[in-house]
Parts: sequence; C-alpha cells; structure tokens
Amino acid sequence: MYTLGEIAEFIDAKLIGDANIKITSIASTVSAQNDQLTYVVNKRYKPDLIASQAGVVILNDNLLSDCPTNALVVDDVYLAFAKITHYFKKQVTHSTGVHSSAKTNNAKIADGCVIGENVVIGQNCIISTHSSIEDGVTIGDNVYLHPNVTILQGCSIGNNVVISPGAVIGSEGFGNARDQQNHWHAIAHLGNVVIGDNVTIGANTTIDRGTIEDTEIHDGVRIDNLVHIAHNVIVGKDTAIAANTGIAGSTILGKRCMIGGMVGIVGHLNICDDVIVNAKSTVDKDIKTPGMYTGIMPLMLHKQWQNVGLWLVKLDKITKYLNVKLKNLKDQ
Amino acid sequence: MYTLGEIAEFIDAKLIGDANIKITSIASTVSAQNDQLTYVVNKRYKPDLIASQAGVVILNDNLLSDCPTNALVVDDVYLAFAKITHYFKKQVTHSTGVHSSAKTNNAKIADGCVIGENVVIGQNCIISTHSSIEDGVTIGDNVYLHPNVTILQGCSIGNNVVISPGAVIGSEGFGNARDQQNHWHAIAHLGNVVIGDNVTIGANTTIDRGTIEDTEIHDGVRIDNLVHIAHNVIVGKDTAIAANTGIAGSTILGKRCMIGGMVGIVGHLNICDDVIVNAKSTVDKDIKTPGMYTGIMPLMLHKQWQNVGLWLVKLDKITKYLNVKLKNLKDQ
Amino acid sequence: MYTLGEIAEFIDAKLIGDANIKITSIASTVSAQNDQLTYVVNKRYKPDLIASQAGVVILNDNLLSDCPTNALVVDDVYLAFAKITHYFKKQVTHSTGVHSSAKTNNAKIADGCVIGENVVIGQNCIISTHSSIEDGVTIGDNVYLHPNVTILQGCSIGNNVVISPGAVIGSEGFGNARDQQNHWHAIAHLGNVVIGDNVTIGANTTIDRGTIEDTEIHDGVRIDNLVHIAHNVIVGKDTAIAANTGIAGSTILGKRCMIGGMVGIVGHLNICDDVIVNAKSTVDKDIKTPGMYTGIMPLMLHKQWQNVGLWLVKLDKITKYLNVKLKNLKDQ
Repeated sequence: MYTLGEIAEFIDAKLIGDANIKITSIASTVSAQNDQLTYVVNKRYKPDLIASQAGVVILNDNLLSDCPTNALVVDDVYLAFAKITHYFKKQVTHSTGVHSSAKTNNAKIADGCVIGENVVIGQNCIISTHSSIEDGVTIGDNVYLHPNVTILQGCSIGNNVVISPGAVIGSEGFGNARDQQNHWHAIAHLGNVVIGDNVTIGANTTIDRGTIEDTEIHDGVRIDNLVHIAHNVIVGKDTAIAANTGIAGSTILGKRCMIGGMVGIVGHLNICDDVIVNAKSTVDKDIKTPGMYTGIMPLMLHKQWQNVGLWLVKLDKITKYLNVKLKNLKDQ
Repeated sequence: MYTLGEIAEFIDAKLIGDANIKITSIASTVSAQNDQLTYVVNKRYKPDLIASQAGVVILNDNLLSDCPTNALVVDDVYLAFAKITHYFKKQVTHSTGVHSSAKTNNAKIADGCVIGENVVIGQNCIISTHSSIEDGVTIGDNVYLHPNVTILQGCSIGNNVVISPGAVIGSEGFGNARDQQNHWHAIAHLGNVVIGDNVTIGANTTIDRGTIEDTEIHDGVRIDNLVHIAHNVIVGKDTAIAANTGIAGSTILGKRCMIGGMVGIVGHLNICDDVIVNAKSTVDKDIKTPGMYTGIMPLMLHKQWQNVGLWLVKLDKITKYLNVKLKNLKDQ
Repeated sequence: MYTLGEIAEFIDAKLIGDANIKITSIASTVSAQNDQLTYVVNKRYKPDLIASQAGVVILNDNLLSDCPTNALVVDDVYLAFAKITHYFKKQVTHSTGVHSSAKTNNAKIADGCVIGENVVIGQNCIISTHSSIEDGVTIGDNVYLHPNVTILQGCSIGNNVVISPGAVIGSEGFGNARDQQNHWHAIAHLGNVVIGDNVTIGANTTIDRGTIEDTEIHDGVRIDNLVHIAHNVIVGKDTAIAANTGIAGSTILGKRCMIGGMVGIVGHLNICDDVIVNAKSTVDKDIKTPGMYTGIMPLMLHKQWQNVGLWLVKLDKITKYLNVKLKNLKDQ
C-alpha cells in the first residue's frame, strides 16, 4: 500500500489531488475502485476515463481535464505504468519443502517438491518430482502434476487437471515499455492464470499470467506440448490447441475451436466459437464465422519454389501490368 | 487384468461373448492376441477385423457380423476406447531418490534425482541434477542426461545417447475423443518411446509416447532444441531435425532426412529416405521422391507484402478472369 | 593439453610439423595463437590460413602449401574437427548442493539448487527452486532465476537479469559432421553464452553455447518464451524477440530490432539495426535496410485456400503462358 505522494515520487509524476490517499492495488480503468490505481494511454479510452471510479489515474496532460478523480500526470503513461507495477508485485517466500501454512489434504507429494505459503491442494492429487508450486496457488481435486512442473504465485487450477512435465503456469507476460533511449522496461504482471476443470496441458508448454486481469483457460480445454499462451489470453470451453502453437497477448478464443499445430495467432484478436485453423496457419485478423481456415504456402520441390517465389513477390506488379496490357489490347 | 464383464460395465457396452474371459492389455487389431482387447472405428478396417485374433473387439453394431471373436458393442467406438485405456495405464511409484529395485551400475547420479522401480541403467552413465526417471525405464551405456531431464515410465534409451536439459521423453500423446456434448476425453497412452543408439536430443524437446505401440527414434538420429515429436512417430536412422520443428502423430520419416528448423509435418504421412525440407516449410502430403523441398512465403517489405497479399487471396479469380479475357480477345 | 603427436593420433591425421608441440585449446583461424589448434574447411578461407598464427591447422592436402605453421592433414576436415573438440571439452563436477568453491554473496538460494565449482554470484540474487548452475558460471548483481532454470558450465550472466522458469542457457549447439556412412558426429561446443545487463529471458527458452567463440545476448535484450537461439548467434542491444521464434546458427541481429512471434531466421545472416519482422515470417536473406518486413500466407477459408494453392504452385507457368499469349495477341 502506497500513498499518492509516494507513487508520484516513484514514477516522477505531477500529482493533481490529495497526497495522503492510499492505493492498495492496480486495476483496469473500467473496474478500478477508489483505493486502486489505473492508467489511460490515449484518447481512445476517454469515455472509460470519464466514467472511472479509480482512486487515481496515470495520464497525459491532454487528458487531465477529463479526469474525474486524482491524477498522476506524466509524459509517457505506459512507461510510468510499467515502473509502478513493480511496487505492487508480491514477493514469493522461496520456501523449503512444503510450507507450514499449505493445505495439501491427501496429496502424494514427491520428495524435493517445493510448496509455498498458503497453497491449497484438493483431494487425491499427485505432485510429482521436482515440481515447484509458489505462494497462494490453489489446486482442485484429482489433479496430476507430472515432474518438473512450475506453477507460479497466485495461479489457480481446477479439478481433474493433468499438467505434463516441464510445463510452466504463470510466467511473466512479455510486456515492456520503451523509453526515449530505446531501453525496455518490463511490466510486472499482477494478474494470474486461472485454469478451469478437466483441462490437460502438454509438456514444456508455457502460460503467462495476465498484466492486471487474469489469463483464463476454461473448462475442458486441451493444450498440447510446447504451446505458448501469452498474457490475458482467454481460451474458451472445450477448445483444443495442438503442439508448437503460439497465441499472442489478449486474444480471445471461442468455444470448441480446434487449433492445429504450429499455428500463430497474433494479439488482441477475437476468434469466434467452432473455428478450425489448420496446422501452420497464421491468424492475423478476427474470425467471425465458424468454419475451417488455412493459410500456408504449399510444399514444392525447392527448384520449383524458387521460380514461384520470383513471381510471387511481384504479384501486384503482374496483375497491374496485365490489366494495362489487356486494356490496351482491348482498346485496339 | 479385467474380465469382459467388467470392461463392458466400464464403457457401458453390450457384450456379445463370455463375460468371464480375462483381458490383460490393449493391442492393435492386427497384433492383438486372445488375452488382448482391440477396437475398430470404421468399415475401412473390416479386413483387419475379420482376421483379428483379439480376445475382444470394441465396435459398432454395423460391424458385429464381421467380428470373429467376442465383441463389445457401443455407439461411439473411439470414445469407448479412450475410456478403457485408463484402466490399463500403469501407476508410477513416485519414489524418493533411487528405488531399491533400480540397477544403476556405476552411473554418476546427482543428488536429488529420482529413479523409479525396476529402472536399469548401463555402464558409464551420467544422470545430472533434478532428473526424473520413472518406473521401468531402460538406459544403455555411456548415456549423458543433462539437468532437469524427465523420462517417463517404461521408455527405453539406447547406448551413447545425450539428452539436453529440460527434454521430456514419454509424455502423454495428444489423443482425445470427443463426446456428443463436445467434451474431450483423453486417451491414456500405453505405448512407450524407444530411442536407439547414438542419438542426441535437444534442450526442452518433447517426445510423446505411443497410443498402443511405441514412438520410435532410430539409431544415429539428431534432434535439436524445442522439437515436438508426437505419439507413434517413427524417425528413421541418421535423420537430423532442427529446432522448433513439430511432427504430428503417426508420421513416418525415412533415413538420412534433414528437416530444417520450424518445419511442420502433419500427421499420418510417409516421408521417404534422403529428403531435405527447408526451414519453416509445411509438409502436408507424403513425399515419395528424395530431394530438397520448400514451401514458405518470401520475405518482403511489409508494404509490398500487403499489396501482394491482396492479389494472392484472389489468385484463382485472377487466373479465371484472365482466361476468359484472353479467350474473348482471341475470339475477336 | 595435448601434443601434436597425440592429436594426430586422435583424429588419424598426417602430421607435418613437430610432434612435441603442446596445444591447450581450439580457436578460430583468425584468432588462434601458437598454443591453439584451428581448422580450415575449404579454399574460401585461404587468406585467413596464410595469415594464421595458430600452433596447428587441420586441413586438406590441397591447402597444405599455403599453411604457415604445423599442419594436420586429413580427408574430411570438418569431421576431424568434430572429433577433436571432445578432447577439449571440460567435464563438469556434478556437485551436490552449493560447491565449496562457489562465491554466492548474499544470494537467496532455494533448497535443492545445485551450484557448481567456482561459480560466482553477485549481490542480491535470487536462485529459485530446482535450478542448476554448473561449474564456472558467473552471475552479476540483482539477478532473479525462476524455478527449474539450467545454466551450463562457463556461461556468464550480467546484472539485473531475469530468467523465467525452465529456461536453458548454454546447451550444446546443433553442429554435427557427417561421415561417409552418413553417420552424424556431434561437435562438442567449447564456446559459452554471454548475457549482458538488463536482459530478460522467457520460460522454457533455450540458448545454445557457441562452437568455439561465444553466443552473445547484449544489454537490454528481451526474449519471450519458447524461443530458440542457436550457437554463435549475436543479439544486438535492446532487441526484443517474441515467443516461439527460432534463430539459427551464427546469425547476427542488430540493435533495437523487434522480432515477432514464431519468426524463423535462418543461419549465417546479418540483420541490420532497427528492423521489425512481423510474426510468423521467415527471414532467409540478409536485411540491410531498417524497416518493417513480412512474409506470411494470408489466412483464408480452407476451400478458398485450396483453389489459390492450385494456382500458386503454377505461378511461374501462368506468367510464362500469359506472356506468350499476350505477345501472340499483340502481334496479331
């Protein structure tokens, strides 16, 4: 908990408001309450700002007149946000063995596992060798963690979940603000990963925690090996994701989707329910209609591909050129 | 071991046959013996069914008249198969340290490694820190396991094998049956991973175990980092596979192939010997002729790519349109 | 340390020179000193050979007359080099807990971590559960290693570095020489990984050590999850690399680049400063001009893609055919 006076100092901001007000956490502009801090990066979010019930908002001078509450005025809002997140990040206890405050029921916990403060584990769980479960993690009933699984602080796992070896749940999201010297400043990710019931997660798969809100894996989801799921992604009920696939930040996948192997889905997209994406395709725009989608270059003999490639990069020129030629010919 | 009566109850099947017959394991329709269970998903496998020596076959009513042995009749064969696999999956012992039944010869085993029941390790092996070797694993001579390697139950490793940190051998395959409510039911994978001699496996690579039969990595194979090899894949002798590549289930790679980085090979394919696939290509059909293959989109300035992309998605329309135009012009 | 006589025997070479000269290590042809061994694979490197100050050079008979120093003449230079590297590879100690020679300052080291011989750790570091730090590793101040991180022998990490769970630093490079029977012979990688200050490395990411010289990650670099960085890659200052990306051996990335997710960059390339590569693109040639680059197939309905694909593989034939047609028409 910090006062507005302290926060203004931490991020070198001009405070418009009461320096004694106490802030307990960070929240989105829409959900923040009067003991929470939020930020508004640009005018697109002006309506949210006007309606915000936050205790304080980090913003630019040009949005100050629209701020209904205390303001922290800075030049680079995103950078100031990145810096302040670190003050609200909980430190983990780095326990030895099973922490005395952990409730592990009848779980079989292999020797050498580390279970942090206030962890709660349900009935009939198996925690295999060399697993690390940090403070505040909640695990449901009938959960099987294979060896070398890492679940970072505060994440929660539902019932009947199987997590394969080497999977990482709750790693930091890849969010960084860049300053004027082109140096990156990491955002401390304060959200968690929330995994529903009947989920399976593959070997060496990584699921990042959310920035402020949570990354969500809904009931019945199947995730294969070496999949990357970024911060704030939401994977809808009963969706299956094959190996080597990556889903970038804040994308929302619908229910019952089937995502093939090594598919890349860029960030901030909405994929509707019942979408099939074939292996190796790239999804770079919203999908609003259920169906099967593909976007890959067909395989050819290398020699053939070289010839095709030569024309492919000129495809716009070819079509223009042919249009003119055809037009000219027609006009003759 | 279960009786047919018990199995019929487990999967809610109508048993045609003797309820007292005992089944010890699951096998393919072709290889199953009279104490084994198998399943036939559709009419394509009718010849195998007719010739099968299995103790019992899970099948649909419409194949019942072709069944030469006991039958378990269900509506959804694949789903019933998925459910019954779990009854035949061995539980691991979750040992502490080196299990008393393990034979480790003169292996250097780092503190904190866990070695399960009936593990056999050959001469001159090094098992580095935080490695987990589950029950029944067999390891040859001169094997070097780097830190954090996981080898799951029943897998076998040949001589002179090097496994890099974080690699996972024998994780569950990504096989799931979907019920009428679109919920996924995992298949318990009962096959193993069998790795030959003189193989190297890269860091954080994952190799899934087979469904019923084994996943096979033959002698002399080289596998780089972060590669995914799915259930029942066979990688032929002296083949090399570069980083980030994924090979989907049941695909067979020939000998002496060189698979570039981040290549995706879809499932159930046959790739012949001496094939080179360039980095980032997608292999979506059998390859029957040795040679070098490529299938990638050339890199362009983003602005140029946007123009090319516009026409690319219309390529079939362009060719049709031009054909008509040309024809019309010619007819003038 | 070996004499030239011993080395000649190890790799079955004809020695031209003094069998008693002692060789302490391996170096590049350009940097090797008189107690070091180097190798020259073909005539392209003749100028380097002529200028070399190495103690001995492995080479073919046809380059012998240009060799200014002792020579080890073999038929297959690369294979002989692969074999000799193993003699110069240091064995690690496979310690238990923290080795007595390690200097760990005030680091918080979780139970079960293994810290090797002569490791040096700076001020205020946190080494989480199940981390393995091999002999000779150097770690700066304020470094945070999450659980299950592996840092292999001799690598060095700067100040203010965060390494996410499951990351592997210093795994063996994927370099292999093939003999006449098509068997692969691994090169023992003798270089290290050198990571600068203010770097973050994502979960389950792997960074291979260099062959002779080091793999370098410069100050301020950000690397996301499941990224593969091969031997001898150099990543320039303040460059950011998103998840699932792979960079092949010896490629040099400039400063302030932004590499999207699941990008593949082939080996031995030079990418200049300030390059943006969009997600899923393949970089297969040098980039000499700053800017934004893309190379992906657009996503389509599968049915549409099938039609486009049919023409795409014939694009060179279409353009040739149309040119003829157009020419013929014009000539009429």
